Amino acid sequence: MSAHLSSFIEVSPTSDFPIQNLPYGIFSETTTGKRRVGVALGDWVVDLAALERAGLLTLQEGEQFFDQPTLNKFIESGKAHWHSTRQTLQRLLSKNEATLRDNTTLRQHAFYQQSDVVMHLPVHIPGYTDFYSSKEHATNVGCMFRDPKNALLPNWSELPVGYNGRASSVVVSGTNIVRPSGQIKLPDQERPVFSACRKLDFELETGFIVGKATHLGEPISIENAWDHIFGMVLFNDWSARDLQQWEYVPLGPFNAKTFASSISPWIVTLEALEPFRTHSPQQDPLPLAYLQEDLSANSYDIHLSVELKAAEQQHADVICSTNFKYMYWSMAQQLTHHTVAGCNVQVGDLMGSGTISGPTPDSYGSLLELTWNNTRPLQLSNGEQRGFLQDGDTLVMKGYCEKNGLRIGFGEVTGTILPARQFAFQETEAQERTKYATV
Amino acid sequence: MSAHLSSFIEVSPTSDFPIQNLPYGIFSETTTGKRRVGVALGDWVVDLAALERAGLLTLQEGEQFFDQPTLNKFIESGKAHWHSTRQTLQRLLSKNEATLRDNTTLRQHAFYQQSDVVMHLPVHIPGYTDFYSSKEHATNVGCMFRDPKNALLPNWSELPVGYNGRASSVVVSGTNIVRPSGQIKLPDQERPVFSACRKLDFELETGFIVGKATHLGEPISIENAWDHIFGMVLFNDWSARDLQQWEYVPLGPFNAKTFASSISPWIVTLEALEPFRTHSPQQDPLPLAYLQEDLSANSYDIHLSVELKAAEQQHADVICSTNFKYMYWSMAQQLTHHTVAGCNVQVGDLMGSGTISGPTPDSYGSLLELTWNNTRPLQLSNGEQRGFLQDGDTLVMKGYCEKNGLRIGFGEVTGTILPARQFAFQETEAQERTKYATV
Repeated sequence: MSAHLSSFIEVSPTSDFPIQNLPYGIFSETTTGKRRVGVALGDWVVDLAALERAGLLTLQEGEQFFDQPTLNKFIESGKAHWHSTRQTLQRLLSKNEATLRDNTTLRQHAFYQQSDVVMHLPVHIPGYTDFYSSKEHATNVGCMFRDPKNALLPNWSELPVGYNGRASSVVVSGTNIVRPSGQIKLPDQERPVFSACRKLDFELETGFIVGKATHLGEPISIENAWDHIFGMVLFNDWSARDLQQWEYVPLGPFNAKTFASSISPWIVTLEALEPFRTHSPQQDPLPLAYLQEDLSANSYDIHLSVELKAAEQQHADVICSTNFKYMYWSMAQQLTHHTVAGCNVQVGDLMGSGTISGPTPDSYGSLLELTWNNTRPLQLSNGEQRGFLQDGDTLVMKGYCEKNGLRIGFGEVTGTILPARQFAFQETEAQERTKYATV
Repeated sequence: MSAHLSSFIEVSPTSDFPIQNLPYGIFSETTTGKRRVGVALGDWVVDLAALERAGLLTLQEGEQFFDQPTLNKFIESGKAHWHSTRQTLQRLLSKNEATLRDNTTLRQHAFYQQSDVVMHLPVHIPGYTDFYSSKEHATNVGCMFRDPKNALLPNWSELPVGYNGRASSVVVSGTNIVRPSGQIKLPDQERPVFSACRKLDFELETGFIVGKATHLGEPISIENAWDHIFGMVLFNDWSARDLQQWEYVPLGPFNAKTFASSISPWIVTLEALEPFRTHSPQQDPLPLAYLQEDLSANSYDIHLSVELKAAEQQHADVICSTNFKYMYWSMAQQLTHHTVAGCNVQVGDLMGSGTISGPTPDSYGSLLELTWNNTRPLQLSNGEQRGFLQDGDTLVMKGYCEKNGLRIGFGEVTGTILPARQFAFQETEAQERTKYATV
């Protein structure tokens, strides 16, 4: 689609959402209001349920795909429908097309200011898997917690390591994050203690949304994998490092991750990202046959950044700038590996990339790496330091592609840290301590 | 409920399904037929949708709870409804009650021979978590793969170790299991090879079904945990040991487990299991406060067995006999730990116990342990040996409680191993090899 196409809606050149993007989301006018499908255009949300009701977006006679509380039904309708809907929307929204442009009544019902609406989870997520596909991230973690000389485990270069996450606790951008509590093991004590997390971290990731389901026992070949991907989101895989370090052997992270994971509200389609295709890093060794793909166009050039704003700060500090193209394993390789033993996938499944770290220290995608496990705290512009996240901190992740004057953005995924909850048994213990102290 | 209560339907004393049990399942008359809720009674299924239509099972005016393809709606209706439905059914099915007993037409519509119907997954499973709560199992695995002197990792005795499983590939008993393929690392080769699994195993587990949801950030206290459990099933967590050993560090098992997990079709309610409450093993050290519960009645005395029938065998061999009561961590402790950092649970979530091994070598709940990783193969009664599962093997897990003449059983969970699928690239590789061989 040409970079010269433009809409009758004015879109700033720095907007993430020109007519060439049209990412899908779910919005309502109030928190409890009716949820339906919209696309972002500049500062606006276009209400696709309204366009569908007006007969401008009919995919299948008598079926409603956009007056829905999630995108799953539209995504399930298939790749041909994704394409035709995009084409129809670009035509309807272009400045040369009168249908919508000159219909004042319909325009009043079909356009909402993004600042006036509430965004929700864009899809029902039946399953969530997280990968670990950045070589720089895996190397950094291996250096810190294992052996700097053998930082990468032997399997890492042979397969896209991944694990099952918890789908129920995936939340939409803007949801506050309560600091989790649990067991942590302090170095000077023999037994663990129950405590609020003291090493709360983010993980800068992207995620892709599965667009085409498979049956159990139907592996997806590497050639077909891209056809199963609907689009991408920004993803913050909040992590409680101290809980994680104590719990994760031998079966992997659990409570350290399942308390919350945040995604951006807008799903950017692969079609919108197409102009920004690029190649993954050279893979050495060459993967086994089932994972071999054409490396000339198996990744995307997506600029990613993380901003941190302490409660007392006026303006956020950029604490990380990196790029999706550094990822060693591609999304197609992840999906192919995920299904090769027979596991089925479902429309709406979320597949996290794993923390996206780049080659330089300012491109690391977590505080664990940026502060080297709190041995090199970050200096914020207001004079504060950060090893890990503090209560009141707001974290903002952003992402965009840019080339030849065309900018396709993801918007952002944000979250603010709230203090840990209190447990009844903690109060009892505190009372006991007070009692003994006063005796 | 008295052991003397009996039904007008004749139930054999050795049946798993007396009127004191009444486990819930989903059945249809053919594979593609209409799914609805039934309870098992002797050799029969009682069609609750039929009883509901006849006005004998009204939970809420105008609402249908049993003419449903899964049990989720009934389970969501709450513990008071579970109790009143059980009471109503026991009354309706008792030999002293004429309503159903003497209504020939209704009886014709409401009773089906179990051998005539198809059973389906009883619940939609939004999330599946697997624990690792048998001390004997964790010790055996630790001895084999780590250090016999420090077989248990330090966290094991402090918390019920668990990990997120893959819900999409949970299947109902009777589903054939295709041998998975994937990467395995042979000791004499530097790089992994792509191969059909050579160490296919079962894991004897039970699972519980979550009956009451929570919101994100609402930990379930140990006192309230039992109220969130609807009932239990038998569970076979099929495992590809060679895939697992190569892939599982550092984030846990993935393709080694996600190809399939099988559950029994009948959910036995906690109410039916009540007479068989017993205590877990003594816990040492005493867990942290949030995991402390009354150990006098936090487990169940459930006899469990595994039978293996090779393709050529007439009769199955019992290869494992154990008991649920050996489990170190209780279901309440598992659920409390799962939610303590804030993770929410959903109605229908499946929580696997982890492999249930007992103290003696014939009570180990996996072939890995029974054959000590194929160093002591099992001798079958037809002269064959087994280190791990072979194609054509059928595995049957059974479970029941028995006390004072009352038997409450789970039925069984079965699966037959089919040969691995062939991949296109394997054919290409095979052709290449042939070509070179003939040059």
